[in-house]
Amino acid sequence: MTEKKTWSDRFESALHPAIARFNASIGFDIELIEYDIAGSIAHAQMLAHTGIISASEGEQLVEGLQQVLQEYQRGEFQPTVDAEDVHFAVERRLTEITGDVGKKLHTARSRNDQVGTDTRLYLRDRIGKIKTQLREFQRVLIDLAEQNIETLIPGYTHLQRAQPLSLAHHLLAYVEMSQRDWERLTDVAKRVNISPLGSGALAGTTFPIDRHYSAKLLGFERVYNNSLDGVSDRDFAIEFACSASLIMVHLSRLAEEVILWSSEEFRFVTLKDSCATGSSIMPQKKNPDVPELVRGKTGRVFGHLQGLLVLMKGLPLAYNKDLQDDKEALFDTVKTVQACLEAMTILMAEGLEFRPSRLQEAVESDFSNATDVADYLAAKGVPFREAYNLVGKVVKTSLGAGKLLKDLSLDEWKALHEAFEADIYEAISPRQVVAARNSYGGTGFEQVQQALDMARSRLNSDT
Amino acid sequence: MTEKKTWSDRFESALHPAIARFNASIGFDIELIEYDIAGSIAHAQMLAHTGIISASEGEQLVEGLQQVLQEYQRGEFQPTVDAEDVHFAVERRLTEITGDVGKKLHTARSRNDQVGTDTRLYLRDRIGKIKTQLREFQRVLIDLAEQNIETLIPGYTHLQRAQPLSLAHHLLAYVEMSQRDWERLTDVAKRVNISPLGSGALAGTTFPIDRHYSAKLLGFERVYNNSLDGVSDRDFAIEFACSASLIMVHLSRLAEEVILWSSEEFRFVTLKDSCATGSSIMPQKKNPDVPELVRGKTGRVFGHLQGLLVLMKGLPLAYNKDLQDDKEALFDTVKTVQACLEAMTILMAEGLEFRPSRLQEAVESDFSNATDVADYLAAKGVPFREAYNLVGKVVKTSLGAGKLLKDLSLDEWKALHEAFEADIYEAISPRQVVAARNSYGGTGFEQVQQALDMARSRLNSDT
Amino acid sequence: MTEKKTWSDRFESALHPAIARFNASIGFDIELIEYDIAGSIAHAQMLAHTGIISASEGEQLVEGLQQVLQEYQRGEFQPTVDAEDVHFAVERRLTEITGDVGKKLHTARSRNDQVGTDTRLYLRDRIGKIKTQLREFQRVLIDLAEQNIETLIPGYTHLQRAQPLSLAHHLLAYVEMSQRDWERLTDVAKRVNISPLGSGALAGTTFPIDRHYSAKLLGFERVYNNSLDGVSDRDFAIEFACSASLIMVHLSRLAEEVILWSSEEFRFVTLKDSCATGSSIMPQKKNPDVPELVRGKTGRVFGHLQGLLVLMKGLPLAYNKDLQDDKEALFDTVKTVQACLEAMTILMAEGLEFRPSRLQEAVESDFSNATDVADYLAAKGVPFREAYNLVGKVVKTSLGAGKLLKDLSLDEWKALHEAFEADIYEAISPRQVVAARNSYGGTGFEQVQQALDMARSRLNSDT
Amino acid sequence: MTEKKTWSDRFESALHPAIARFNASIGFDIELIEYDIAGSIAHAQMLAHTGIISASEGEQLVEGLQQVLQEYQRGEFQPTVDAEDVHFAVERRLTEITGDVGKKLHTARSRNDQVGTDTRLYLRDRIGKIKTQLREFQRVLIDLAEQNIETLIPGYTHLQRAQPLSLAHHLLAYVEMSQRDWERLTDVAKRVNISPLGSGALAGTTFPIDRHYSAKLLGFERVYNNSLDGVSDRDFAIEFACSASLIMVHLSRLAEEVILWSSEEFRFVTLKDSCATGSSIMPQKKNPDVPELVRGKTGRVFGHLQGLLVLMKGLPLAYNKDLQDDKEALFDTVKTVQACLEAMTILMAEGLEFRPSRLQEAVESDFSNATDVADYLAAKGVPFREAYNLVGKVVKTSLGAGKLLKDLSLDEWKALHEAFEADIYEAISPRQVVAARNSYGGTGFEQVQQALDMARSRLNSDT
Repeated sequence: MTEKKTWSDRFESALHPAIARFNASIGFDIELIEYDIAGSIAHAQMLAHTGIISASEGEQLVEGLQQVLQEYQRGEFQPTVDAEDVHFAVERRLTEITGDVGKKLHTARSRNDQVGTDTRLYLRDRIGKIKTQLREFQRVLIDLAEQNIETLIPGYTHLQRAQPLSLAHHLLAYVEMSQRDWERLTDVAKRVNISPLGSGALAGTTFPIDRHYSAKLLGFERVYNNSLDGVSDRDFAIEFACSASLIMVHLSRLAEEVILWSSEEFRFVTLKDSCATGSSIMPQKKNPDVPELVRGKTGRVFGHLQGLLVLMKGLPLAYNKDLQDDKEALFDTVKTVQACLEAMTILMAEGLEFRPSRLQEAVESDFSNATDVADYLAAKGVPFREAYNLVGKVVKTSLGAGKLLKDLSLDEWKALHEAFEADIYEAISPRQVVAARNSYGGTGFEQVQQALDMARSRLNSDT
Repeated sequence: MTEKKTWSDRFESALHPAIARFNASIGFDIELIEYDIAGSIAHAQMLAHTGIISASEGEQLVEGLQQVLQEYQRGEFQPTVDAEDVHFAVERRLTEITGDVGKKLHTARSRNDQVGTDTRLYLRDRIGKIKTQLREFQRVLIDLAEQNIETLIPGYTHLQRAQPLSLAHHLLAYVEMSQRDWERLTDVAKRVNISPLGSGALAGTTFPIDRHYSAKLLGFERVYNNSLDGVSDRDFAIEFACSASLIMVHLSRLAEEVILWSSEEFRFVTLKDSCATGSSIMPQKKNPDVPELVRGKTGRVFGHLQGLLVLMKGLPLAYNKDLQDDKEALFDTVKTVQACLEAMTILMAEGLEFRPSRLQEAVESDFSNATDVADYLAAKGVPFREAYNLVGKVVKTSLGAGKLLKDLSLDEWKALHEAFEADIYEAISPRQVVAARNSYGGTGFEQVQQALDMARSRLNSDT
Repeated sequence: MTEKKTWSDRFESALHPAIARFNASIGFDIELIEYDIAGSIAHAQMLAHTGIISASEGEQLVEGLQQVLQEYQRGEFQPTVDAEDVHFAVERRLTEITGDVGKKLHTARSRNDQVGTDTRLYLRDRIGKIKTQLREFQRVLIDLAEQNIETLIPGYTHLQRAQPLSLAHHLLAYVEMSQRDWERLTDVAKRVNISPLGSGALAGTTFPIDRHYSAKLLGFERVYNNSLDGVSDRDFAIEFACSASLIMVHLSRLAEEVILWSSEEFRFVTLKDSCATGSSIMPQKKNPDVPELVRGKTGRVFGHLQGLLVLMKGLPLAYNKDLQDDKEALFDTVKTVQACLEAMTILMAEGLEFRPSRLQEAVESDFSNATDVADYLAAKGVPFREAYNLVGKVVKTSLGAGKLLKDLSLDEWKALHEAFEADIYEAISPRQVVAARNSYGGTGFEQVQQALDMARSRLNSDT
Repeated sequence: MTEKKTWSDRFESALHPAIARFNASIGFDIELIEYDIAGSIAHAQMLAHTGIISASEGEQLVEGLQQVLQEYQRGEFQPTVDAEDVHFAVERRLTEITGDVGKKLHTARSRNDQVGTDTRLYLRDRIGKIKTQLREFQRVLIDLAEQNIETLIPGYTHLQRAQPLSLAHHLLAYVEMSQRDWERLTDVAKRVNISPLGSGALAGTTFPIDRHYSAKLLGFERVYNNSLDGVSDRDFAIEFACSASLIMVHLSRLAEEVILWSSEEFRFVTLKDSCATGSSIMPQKKNPDVPELVRGKTGRVFGHLQGLLVLMKGLPLAYNKDLQDDKEALFDTVKTVQACLEAMTILMAEGLEFRPSRLQEAVESDFSNATDVADYLAAKGVPFREAYNLVGKVVKTSLGAGKLLKDLSLDEWKALHEAFEADIYEAISPRQVVAARNSYGGTGFEQVQQALDMARSRLNSDT
């Protein structure tokens, strides 16, 4: 049986039980309880500060709210479905504790601005946590890069071997991506950290509230300038979901690479037992479950982004009940991104081992030094396009003969073009091929060392 | 501490606890337990039928599995997170019950074909339930239509009044939409109801299994013809999610209309207390929460569809761990569609009351009969385009004079065109305007009655 | 300067030129011109058939419309932007040709049912073409499979080598996927091939039309039963976009595999020059552009599906201008799927060559026969789980010793378990491993031959 | 016949014509031509500046490129499909003009960094244009608001009348939303305006280039720190598409409101002929096509965002051909947002007229002042919850009696509660109800005036 609700004096009959269940959000918005209480404490303090309630009432409310939180944390206070939502659950318990003064908490406030406040406090907190996780992810990649400046790995375009790389350079590409993620979250946070509290149901309030006061208590940087916008804006959730989607794009790319690298064909890494699973019927299997799951969860986050956008499309002002459905998408986005970042960080930190001999063999066994032959000739004055075409022919001939470029004799080189000298062998050695790409941001070892230093110094900065 | 897994003899160290949590699916795939057990029972029976295990072993397995199910249903068996997934949890409990024979259950089977079987059984069952709900939704709409054949309501294009309609005609449009939903689910079910069981991990099995036998026991219509396809196909989940999205499109359209109708401006319906909520600070409010939430949840289902598509994009054959992430999207799609169908059915059955006097006033107070003036003239031989232009002018003049067409005197009509006679008043009365559109599928009362009969007879048919 | 429109007698001023441009659809709906004319011809014939216009008028309209089509096809009739949309452009040209009788064409019709008719005719036609392309794609795969029944290829789960496969079996998995695509399009076509013609603007018409007559002339199987539904239903476009998305899922999976196979690490296929491109600066490169582009275009089709769903969300009945924006998404979905199917068919038919020696080497050089050792023991009475664990240990030891299973001496085998005999070598040879998986749908050669025969016979059938 | 490409010396046969068409991007990337030429000019200047080519060569290249641009702008140079892409088309024409020196342009550059540069220059430019459009949109709203500070309009939550508002306050909510859009684009632009030029194909280059020099010439703020990231990052396009989606969310909300306002039921605005269209068969219709189309195009932009995300999911480093498919989505997103902003700006500036008498009637004819009765009592010391419940009863009674609150006699008020005095009538007059909500960001007239001043001053600022 559904309890009579606060609005029921105009209403003659109770809600249909199935409808009450359908409407209830307590099943998921309990996630907001600590932020709801924090928001209410600040609101109570503002009410006392402005004289809307007495100082003593303010204190009773604050103490009562703190007690509710403690009861919740100790597991003594467990809201049930008939409470409808977390806000009502807290207010009801507060009133049990404090008596009638508890009913004054909702003065000059509506559930519309209240839930907006809670959600922003929640998300601001989670964005902070995710930023910390991004830093930790970067730290792990940087450490791994530092150990592998001189380790070479084939570089690919179109998944075809293109040019050899310093493994550190490859890993630092992901540090750059996550740096953008970090910066993007900083930008998003600016638009999360705005207080809607005091917007009322839609139009503001007749009470002489001080919105800047409660905002300051809650650590908000600004307040919404327009009450209609304050109660109906969900840009911040969408913008966050887009940033989360980009984090997943980056993680999915690294995940894909780890899956490739750990295949029998690539054999660039060995998965460690602590981060791999076996098969229930194939005893030889060692499966890269972590990167596969991360790759799989990418779609989930994209889906939440889409869901939130669709939610908002074409809604007239101001608050509409549709907005209640933003929460599960937001919460699951946060949880998924946090879980994936944690798992990938563990995987990169302790879940895989690069296989140097295999990598060395790889970079020596292909034609990814062909460009350098063209560059060699170009440096000796042969027009690039002519040099390029010549090398195309050499590659074709060598492929046919089952040879690599390093296997050609000096005579063979000279027969191709008189400009070749003995230094061609050094010029096309993988190490030299890498070292030579010393343009800013390139894979040359000097550049990589500088990039590493910069990335590490950024770890402890605020930008 | 994570338990040693079945594959651990090749593995030296245990899974990192955070990775174990990340990989585990028991938190959500417990939803599949009854289907998992049903699938295992059929598999055990097949193993006995083909002599791969003895008849007695088969019986022990079947009885053991039935016991596990009963224990689960009585709340005595509650799988914990260390069980990793529902399949392993059931098998472990079975082995506790039956001893070593329990270990034979997994003969000639892999978790890849097992989870595929479970998911299809689950979805087949839910599709059946949703189809039943669609029929109930139709029944409610048809009943309401039957009471409102003669009730008129403005018909809109571009949300502008276009032509008056029989309210029954309007409601039956939604019956047609949900009929397509019903038929679509029937088509989807054909591609859900195919057995992957016996596909093994990817390549089939060396045991002399009989896939058609277990498929028949489980009520599958066909078996997958290719084992690689059998373990890696998720088309059925995506196709279902698309059908679910279309159900939500239709519900969201009706929801939007109920929201409009219950606004102060339309006042076409009154929401009943059992299906509306009030405001915590505005005593006059009566909010259409149900249709708003339904409209809001539309995005959620679209998002799951997108998530599932993204999940599958570019996955190489055969099974990849990514596929594990299909379940939460699928389960939540099912739950959301079921909850929304239930809520909208209740809303239409008992949550709103049409306001006949307001509707009558509405259809009499606009220019939605203007086309009929043109038709009147056309029927008297005036070329349509000329008649149309003439009516355009009349509308403009009348608007300026604050008059409706019915307010014009016969002299005024005749001054416009000599063809007008006294029967013009009848021709433009809303009732006649509706009755006249008697083309097949039109809003004319005869047509509506026929459409209603057809829709009702369809309720009890299989198509 | 925008021309005065047909509705302008009530309107005093012309459309703002920028707004006219914004509203105009002629830039893309010209794609529908032949279907628009076909629909108009059937409508004219129906008008004459029912006596709404005279037989002679009907003939003039039909001939005039045929002339418009011929002029268009010869490039003589080129609608300009001021025509707003293709329907108006055709009607205007018709009236130039036939004089006033042309104005009668629009009797008992509205642009709302007209555009719905055109779009369905267009899509029905394109679905037919795509189904033909799917058959051709299957034929190419079947031919390739037929040549490669005995070619072995590693089978993967988690991109880890699992068990060797017949290459034909692998290719046939894609034939099964495209078979579902084909069947799904057949189902979708049922809901495309319904005539909305005669629904009028929203409510039907006062003219004694015969909707079944025009529907039959146009090859529609049914007519919409409800006029509101007839003008506002876009389910068929969405359902098609979902089917198109699934085609793209399947093509993207094959694309991913071709990309992997053509990498230096896999080397399972060689790309032929006719289907690969080079690099402007790396002479050795041969890039799999076709499968990469196909994989890339997958997102585009998913995006169109979402766009269409979002378009429809929450639209009140009946027609709304939003619906005009369905066309570009639909047209581009059709074009993209057709282009990708064509490109992948060419690629599979003549763009790549499997490398048998490399494939043979691959299947002989891993532990993907480990399951068969366990099966071997199990067949000799060793409990599966015990056998499985034993094999796990052998794999670990062998990996450490740099050996494969086939390299173990019989003494080594016997030391592991006394049940091993000399026939173990045959049992774990790749060919035998494949042959042994002879369960229905498995990779055993007999099964593959049967599957091939069935797939080929299906090519010429209607199901 | 496809021309032999630059890489063809290794290749023996030409591309299949259908594949050449499939691969070609010239059909759409011609949009980039001016940015491609600008990028090439800067690259040529950098090559000369660093001495990689001579000063004279640099000048020839720059002049040649300027000539290509002029030829293009004059319509003399029209790239054809055989040019494959815009980069090759420009380079080929350049070489025709300058002879062999043209071939030096591509020194130390790859198409991978080149196309990345072009796309960023294009998008940076378009973001600037969109920001200007946002400012113009705000200006129009602010002007309209300024004229309507004292105009009252019902305020809604759940599309139920909640509290009356200043129309200016309502309009300013959209100014706030578009302000966030503006700020967001500023943030996005930071991550668009980074130069990838000099990243080479993936690894940097062996030439002594100066990436910061060319970046500065092109107005980039930074250069990519990692060459792999530089050629494969598309975050900026996705982030832009998300910002564009949010612009569309906001426009769709306003569009929805205009559609509602212009309905017969609301009648809050009259659409002017310059921004509305009529019906081909219903002479009385005046349709809000512009806001409907804007609402419809929202899905299209969401779809592009999803398409781009899906494109990037799981791509291994570095450049993959998939990335070519980013362009059409990006271009259409830009065009759609620009067209919708233009159309909505025109609509708000000159396409509609608010109807003051209808608005006044609306705010006087409902119970949206009920909260103020409760506030009135609360201010006189009646506990809020008690006051609230009392008002609920009054509303119910009045509704039953067909009365509004203002219609109650003072005796009736006093009968309800003794605290009521004659000043209750003033307290519940709409104007007073609005004025009283004078909290920061509320609808009180003083607040609205301040908000308006702030919004206007922001128009000319950079933040």
